[in-house]
Amino acid sequence: MKQKRKILIIGAGRSASCLIKYLLEKSKVENLHIIIGDKLIESAKNMANNHQNATPITLDIFDEETRRDAIKNADIVISMLPARFHMEVAKDCITYGKSMVTASYVSKEMKDLDKAVKEKGLVFMNEIGLDPGIDHMSAMQVIDRIRDKGGKLLLFESFTGGLVAPESDDNLWNYKFTWNPRNVVIAGQGGAAKFIQEGKYKYIPYHKLFRRTEKFYIDGYGKFEAIANRDSLGYMNEYKLHDILTLYRGTIRRVGFSKAWNIFIQLGMTDDTYIMENSENMSYRDFINSFLPYHPLDSVELKLRSYLKIDQDDILCEKLDELDIFNPNKKMGIKNATPAQLLQRILMDKWTLQADDKDMIVMLHKFGYELKGEKKQIESSTVVIGEDQIYTAMAKTVGLPVAIASLKILNGEITKPGVQIPIAKEVYEPILKELTETGIKFTEKRVIYEGYNPELLKG
Amino acid sequence: MKQKRKILIIGAGRSASCLIKYLLEKSKVENLHIIIGDKLIESAKNMANNHQNATPITLDIFDEETRRDAIKNADIVISMLPARFHMEVAKDCITYGKSMVTASYVSKEMKDLDKAVKEKGLVFMNEIGLDPGIDHMSAMQVIDRIRDKGGKLLLFESFTGGLVAPESDDNLWNYKFTWNPRNVVIAGQGGAAKFIQEGKYKYIPYHKLFRRTEKFYIDGYGKFEAIANRDSLGYMNEYKLHDILTLYRGTIRRVGFSKAWNIFIQLGMTDDTYIMENSENMSYRDFINSFLPYHPLDSVELKLRSYLKIDQDDILCEKLDELDIFNPNKKMGIKNATPAQLLQRILMDKWTLQADDKDMIVMLHKFGYELKGEKKQIESSTVVIGEDQIYTAMAKTVGLPVAIASLKILNGEITKPGVQIPIAKEVYEPILKELTETGIKFTEKRVIYEGYNPELLKG
Repeated sequence: MKQKRKILIIGAGRSASCLIKYLLEKSKVENLHIIIGDKLIESAKNMANNHQNATPITLDIFDEETRRDAIKNADIVISMLPARFHMEVAKDCITYGKSMVTASYVSKEMKDLDKAVKEKGLVFMNEIGLDPGIDHMSAMQVIDRIRDKGGKLLLFESFTGGLVAPESDDNLWNYKFTWNPRNVVIAGQGGAAKFIQEGKYKYIPYHKLFRRTEKFYIDGYGKFEAIANRDSLGYMNEYKLHDILTLYRGTIRRVGFSKAWNIFIQLGMTDDTYIMENSENMSYRDFINSFLPYHPLDSVELKLRSYLKIDQDDILCEKLDELDIFNPNKKMGIKNATPAQLLQRILMDKWTLQADDKDMIVMLHKFGYELKGEKKQIESSTVVIGEDQIYTAMAKTVGLPVAIASLKILNGEITKPGVQIPIAKEVYEPILKELTETGIKFTEKRVIYEGYNPELLKG
Repeated sequence: MKQKRKILIIGAGRSASCLIKYLLEKSKVENLHIIIGDKLIESAKNMANNHQNATPITLDIFDEETRRDAIKNADIVISMLPARFHMEVAKDCITYGKSMVTASYVSKEMKDLDKAVKEKGLVFMNEIGLDPGIDHMSAMQVIDRIRDKGGKLLLFESFTGGLVAPESDDNLWNYKFTWNPRNVVIAGQGGAAKFIQEGKYKYIPYHKLFRRTEKFYIDGYGKFEAIANRDSLGYMNEYKLHDILTLYRGTIRRVGFSKAWNIFIQLGMTDDTYIMENSENMSYRDFINSFLPYHPLDSVELKLRSYLKIDQDDILCEKLDELDIFNPNKKMGIKNATPAQLLQRILMDKWTLQADDKDMIVMLHKFGYELKGEKKQIESSTVVIGEDQIYTAMAKTVGLPVAIASLKILNGEITKPGVQIPIAKEVYEPILKELTETGIKFTEKRVIYEGYNPELLKG
């Protein structure tokens, strides 16, 4: 019998459901006790669900004494807080010699702890959720395999998206909010998207981003489109892809979403940098009219179509109508709001998951490579459908890798110390193996090598 | 005979030429001595031009001792430095009890000095160049006159631009750089433009800004267009226009410039927030291709026209060709450059003023008001043509108000203490009067009141 181990989970939000469920299910055989800390004791209690191996506690991350006590008392710490709050936890983990796991990107400050973490022999595993997380592991598994055979990578494209499951997909946008709506509304802002196609660096500004989508199929699920992420070039260093010809990462939507979303960008509705005059009493119609030229007579609808050159019978018009965005009677009711906040308000009327709706996670990687003078291509994909509104595909794909990694660190199966992300074989192999057992499984197929010349091959 | 007064001018850049010329011309009758301080003694010497009443000195604003000595020794201080350097000067001026004049916007830090400035009985006059400067004075003169008669302002639109003079206008863009090219390239960035038209707040994002121009005529000079400034709403407070129906400020270009400039914005070429890969060895053609989709065969020209839906015979194509922007042989030659810096490089080949080119300043105000139940409108405009490359229209319109204000403060004609801008009658009246004598003169005409309903009246 293993001795009792205590796992402290800080943050009992929606994304922690599958993480906690997994650890509680393992708690007997692994002899675990799960301490669930949240600022709101009710959230922690909900997640603990009176399980004998769980203890909910009130934990305000800025209450130093409680925080330190909780960390000192644990054998390993999982932070499910927003990324900006990790540092308080991380510093205490070093002080008290505890390993730590997060699903967030490694910040500069976190990286700077590497030396101290190594000196104490601790494992600080980050970027071990879905994206970043499962993407790193599933991509590096194929990349290492290609390299081990002596192949040279020519192309790496990687796409991830959180969508509504086909059985719950009942609007013209083929989209509902399955995660933080705010991040969806402001997605793509903050700088040009950068990537490489056939050795050429390409840059797309935000206001063109949603018109430059890449399309692809996934067997059994149909066609999707992807919007370029900002950060594709960073993966050159992380995956050591320095001479690669094509490097592209994107966010997945259903075909047609992005062209319609571009209307909001063109109008200026996704701007989150200024507050609109009198936002509280503004109607939905006033809101859209604020971004259109003044005219004493012309309708808002006609002004919009003329301004953005949209045909009367374009499906774009139906998509806007479906959102009730021209309604002169619905009031915003939010004081001092930015355009992005008001747009989110409108979208939440229609895009909020209903009680029996399910979500869906889609991930696809394309690997092009040369092996013994021959050019080859592999596509690897996974689709995960949520169980319900608690055990969503998102919570599953974010939470399970975190849970599995934490347990493996605790059990000494993952031991290499330092601030890290899961791109080493000894980390991703055992985790992917266990993920497969939980149903998160990648399907690979060989296709002909296209490079980034899709049109040439078609025409 | 007045006693000798010393005027310290800090910053002997291009914008100081007319300022210094004016003060030197007055130096005998007014008994002035002009101390011209610059980091580069050569610039100061050039401006002093061996005049008996001028002393050029080396003045590095961050050399505290020299700066303080120079300020202590002066009777009034003019700072022609970039706005961010004013504060060092301003604090010393308070310490040594000297009034100060700048052509820059009042910063938060400058405003905070108001109490200290008043306690010492000093005048800190800011925003007394062209725009801001002459715009404040010429607008407030008409606004006050309308109010004095009992009129109520309904509309205020104000436009200013630095252009090339008609006699030097020889490119398809009808534009050359008459001021800092960098500011032209990044103009309009940093947030949505906000204004009011017929009581409706309107917001234009950057990527639509250059497609929403307002047009107007100036007798003898033809048609112009204006791009909305970011900051129109700030003038509500400054000019006390709280109930106004239409409030709009814009930057003037010749008709057709903005639609062509929008190509650069759409492509992402005006972005100044990231560095492009291998910018030094990039050709002009590579640069434009970086913003276009990859294709193994299609030409850059065709990709551009297709991407932005430009007809083959559109004048936009001629405007681009004129810039030689598709040239595969011209290299950028700038390391680690942003798109905006590279675009500026291309434009400077063609848009730099030639030795005998002249510049032109255009300013137009529209005032709509109601007086005794009747709606009326006044248009007030000025056009100033430069003399040559030293005494440009820009240097004249920026420098003369600064010079005149400084002398009037020195002579006790402007006395109200505090950190201020020239919107008080006792300030703008004498300055505008003297500007008229130097040839900077506004022409007024009455037109029918349109409000912001231009199309209604035309159709």
